[in-house]
Amino acid sequence: MSKKITSKSKDFSKWYNDIIINADLAENSGVRGCMVIKPYGFAIWEEMKKVLDKMFKDSGHVNAYFPLFIPKSFFSKEASHVDGFAKECAIVTHYRLKNDDSGQVIVDQDAKLEEELIVRPTSETIIWDTYRRWIKSYRDLPLLINQWANVVRWEMRTRLFLRTSEFLWQEGHTAHETNLEAIEETKNILAIYKQFIENTLAIPVVDGLKTESEKFAGAVDTYCVEALMQDGKALQAGTSHFLGQNFAKAFDVKFANRNGELEHVWASSWGVSTRLIGALVMTHSDDFGLVLPPELAPYQAVLIPIYHNDDERTSIISEMKKIAKQLRDLNIRVKEDYQDSRKPGWKFSQYEMKGVPIRIAMGPRDMANQTVEMLRRDTLDKKTVTLDSITDNVLKNLEDMQKKLYVKANKFRKNNTYSVDTFDDFKEKINLGGFVLAHWDGTSETEEQIKKITKATIRCIPIDSTQEDGQCVLTGKPSDKRVIFAKSY
Amino acid sequence: MSKKITSKSKDFSKWYNDIIINADLAENSGVRGCMVIKPYGFAIWEEMKKVLDKMFKDSGHVNAYFPLFIPKSFFSKEASHVDGFAKECAIVTHYRLKNDDSGQVIVDQDAKLEEELIVRPTSETIIWDTYRRWIKSYRDLPLLINQWANVVRWEMRTRLFLRTSEFLWQEGHTAHETNLEAIEETKNILAIYKQFIENTLAIPVVDGLKTESEKFAGAVDTYCVEALMQDGKALQAGTSHFLGQNFAKAFDVKFANRNGELEHVWASSWGVSTRLIGALVMTHSDDFGLVLPPELAPYQAVLIPIYHNDDERTSIISEMKKIAKQLRDLNIRVKEDYQDSRKPGWKFSQYEMKGVPIRIAMGPRDMANQTVEMLRRDTLDKKTVTLDSITDNVLKNLEDMQKKLYVKANKFRKNNTYSVDTFDDFKEKINLGGFVLAHWDGTSETEEQIKKITKATIRCIPIDSTQEDGQCVLTGKPSDKRVIFAKSY
Repeated sequence: MSKKITSKSKDFSKWYNDIIINADLAENSGVRGCMVIKPYGFAIWEEMKKVLDKMFKDSGHVNAYFPLFIPKSFFSKEASHVDGFAKECAIVTHYRLKNDDSGQVIVDQDAKLEEELIVRPTSETIIWDTYRRWIKSYRDLPLLINQWANVVRWEMRTRLFLRTSEFLWQEGHTAHETNLEAIEETKNILAIYKQFIENTLAIPVVDGLKTESEKFAGAVDTYCVEALMQDGKALQAGTSHFLGQNFAKAFDVKFANRNGELEHVWASSWGVSTRLIGALVMTHSDDFGLVLPPELAPYQAVLIPIYHNDDERTSIISEMKKIAKQLRDLNIRVKEDYQDSRKPGWKFSQYEMKGVPIRIAMGPRDMANQTVEMLRRDTLDKKTVTLDSITDNVLKNLEDMQKKLYVKANKFRKNNTYSVDTFDDFKEKINLGGFVLAHWDGTSETEEQIKKITKATIRCIPIDSTQEDGQCVLTGKPSDKRVIFAKSY
Repeated sequence: MSKKITSKSKDFSKWYNDIIINADLAENSGVRGCMVIKPYGFAIWEEMKKVLDKMFKDSGHVNAYFPLFIPKSFFSKEASHVDGFAKECAIVTHYRLKNDDSGQVIVDQDAKLEEELIVRPTSETIIWDTYRRWIKSYRDLPLLINQWANVVRWEMRTRLFLRTSEFLWQEGHTAHETNLEAIEETKNILAIYKQFIENTLAIPVVDGLKTESEKFAGAVDTYCVEALMQDGKALQAGTSHFLGQNFAKAFDVKFANRNGELEHVWASSWGVSTRLIGALVMTHSDDFGLVLPPELAPYQAVLIPIYHNDDERTSIISEMKKIAKQLRDLNIRVKEDYQDSRKPGWKFSQYEMKGVPIRIAMGPRDMANQTVEMLRRDTLDKKTVTLDSITDNVLKNLEDMQKKLYVKANKFRKNNTYSVDTFDDFKEKINLGGFVLAHWDGTSETEEQIKKITKATIRCIPIDSTQEDGQCVLTGKPSDKRVIFAKSY
C-alpha cells in the first residue's frame, strides 16, 4: 500500500482525493471551485472524447459551437428551466476594467452591460434561440448536433471531478419532426452512453427513467444511467432528456410539416461530463492508486529498465526499444521511462499510482535469460515472460483486464444490490450502502418522505424492471414495479 | 457566379461575409459579439485541430485544462500584461439570480463576489499561478503544455472569425530551465505554425519578429506568421512569444537549477485561433463561394446522382455506393447526396458554395458509358472519367489542388509585394494593397508616424531578411534591413 494514499476502507472520501492528487489527474486552482485538469487526467478525458465522439458521428451527429454567454432574459423563457439552472451561476455584468487614481485595477462602472450575461450552465436556451433561424421546414429536420464545451454552475461545496464550478462536457441538442422520433433519439443516446460506459469505462450501469422530482429542469422525461461506487453510493453517469416541445414553444421554433402545417419542433438533449473520471476512480481503484481500464489508459504499458552500469543500461534499453516498437506496431500505447534521475523502485510505485495496466521491467538477469518481468495492475500478479511472447502476453492481458474490471465491478454491484419489502429492511440496507430495489407508490410526497428519513433518493425507474405486484415500502399503497433507491453523489 | 454572393471585386468585405453565411460556416448569435460556429465551419476547425494537435504531440507537448476564470488581482501582477489584456474583458461580479417581487429574474445583490473574476482573454496568469505549485527543480522542466479553449476579448466592432468577443484557440504555455531553451521552443513552434499553415491551409506566410509596439503584452519577443489576403491586407495568422522570466517573476515561480541555486523559470507562450478559418476564406475563395484545400475539407469529394425515374435512380446510386466505398478505402472523406427533395442543379451550386474539392456526377448516359463527370472546385474544370480510373483521378486531383492553391496564393503574394525606397512610392504601394518592403530606422516614433499617415503597420521583421544598407523610408536614418509594412486585419 502506498504511504501517500489513505486506505479506502478507512476514509473513502480522503482516499478518492489522495488518488486524484497523487496520480496527477487534477487539483484545485487559485480560482474558487474551479479545477485544473492536469495532463495525465486530461489524457484520459481525451481518450473518452475520442471514443464517444466517434460513436456520435457514426450515429449521424455533427459537432458545432455555440456562445459561452447567455442573455439573462433567455432563461426566463422556459419556466421550469430557470428555476433549475439560472440560480447558482456566474453572472457577467461589466465589460471593462480601468486603473483608479492610485493605479489599482478596478471595474469600470461606466462599462455596465445593458443586460447581464450568464456563463452557460447548459445551452438549451441559446441553442433553441439559434435553431429558430435554422428550422423552417421538415426538410431542415432532424438536426443532430453535439457540442464539446465548458460549463459553469456555481457550487458552494466542490469536489474534484464530481462537483466543480466549471467542468467540461458534451451536450447534444437535437430537433425532430415528431414526438416519436425525438423519444427514439433520447433512448438511442442512452443506449450509446450505456455501451460506452460499460465497454470503455468498464463500469456497469442501470439505465432508467428519473422520477418527476429528479428530472431535468425543462424536460418531459429524463433518462439516465446510474453506476454504483465502491463506497455503496450511486453516481449519475449520464442523462438523456426528452424535451417535448418545451423549448420550441419557449423560443417559438416552428416548422412546416409534411402537410404544410406549422408545428412546434420536438427535441432532445443529453450529456456526459468529466465527472466520468470521478466514476472511473471510484469504481476500479485500490489502495495502491488508480486502476485504469486499458481502453482509456493514456499508457497501456510502461517499460522500465533496471541496470547498475552503463553497459547494462545500453543493452537493456536497446532491447526495450525493440519491444516498444513491436507493441506500438500493434497500436498499443507505450511509455518508455529511461530517465536516470529516478530509481526503478520509484518508477514502479509511480506507475502503479497512475494505473498503467501493464508494467514491463528488465534487469541484467532477465537480459541474460531473454525474458522480462510483467506486472498487471489490477491483480498485481507478476510473471516472467520470454521476449518472443511479450506482444501476445500484453495483448491478451489488456483484453482480459478490460473484461475482468467490468466483471469485478458487476459482481460488486450484484453483492450490494438488495431487494427489500419492509421499511425496516429498507433503512437497514440503505445504511449498508448499495442499490436498494423497493416498491414505491409513485408519488413525489412519498419519495420526499423517504429522502427525509433515510437520505436515499430514487436513482431511477429501471427500463428493464419486471412488472410485479407489490406495496410501497413506506405507504403500503399498490405498486407494479420496483425502483432503485440509493444514497448518491 | 452565385447570385447569393457579392462579387469579390465589388465589395470584398461583403463578399467575405456572404461566403461565411452561404457556405454555412458561422453566423452571429443572439449574444452581442459572439458567433455560432455551424457544423460545416466547425468540421473545418476539427480538421485543423487534428493536424495541429498531432504536430504538438509529436514534438513532445501534452494537453491540459485550466480554469475559465481569472481573479482580477492576477492581472495586476504583470504590469504590461494588464494594460494589454485586462481592459476590454468580460467581468463576473455575481454568482446568483433571484426572482424579484414581480417574478422577474434579477441579479441577487447579496451574491456579490469578493473579488471579481475575468473570463480569460489568454491564460498566462492563471497558468503561471499553477506552475508555481508544479515546478520545484530542474527535474520538473521543461513543461510543454497546450490547451484547446475558448477565450473572450470584449470587442466593439466584430467580424465573423476575424474579430469576435468569444473565439476558440489553442494556447501553449511552456516552462524551461534556460533562456536559450525557451527561445528555441518559441522558434520551433513558429516553424510548426508555418509548416501547418503552408502545407495544410495552403497559405504562404512570412515568419518574423514583431516590433516593440506590436508585441504581446508581457513578452520579451513576439514572433509571428503573417499572410496576405486577396484584398491586399495582411492577416496575423499565429504568434509565438518568448516571455523571458516575466511571468515567473510576477508569479514567483523559481526552480533549483543544476547547481542547486534558485532561479526564475523561463517561458514561452503561443497560439492560433479560429481566425485561421477567416484566413482560409480570404486566401482561396472566389465568386462562386468557398474554396477549401483538400487537406481540410470536411468532404473531399461529393457524389451526386442524376436520374429521371426509379430504375435510373436505383442503378446509379448502386454504382455510386461502390465508388464511395473505393474512395473511403483510400481514406478520402466522401459525401453521398442522394436526397430526392433537391434537384441536381441545386446540389451542384450548394457544394460549389461549400468548396468541396471534387464533385462526381453520374447520369443515365454516364451509366451507359461507364463514366462519371468530375469537376474540380478550384479550376471549375469538368471532365469525363471512366469508372476504373476514378480513384486515381480523385487522388491525383486532390493532391494537385492542394499544391496549386498554395502556388496560386504564393504567386498572388509575389505580385503584391513591393520593395520601395521613397516615401512617395511607399504611400502609393500601400494604397494599392500588399506587402511593402521598406527600410525603417528602428524607432517606435517613426513606426507610429508612418501608421498615422498611411494606416500601415509593420507586420514583422522577417526572419530571413537579408542584411542590406539602406535609409529609413520616412526619416532617412540608416537601416540594415527591410521590414514588411501593410494595412492589416
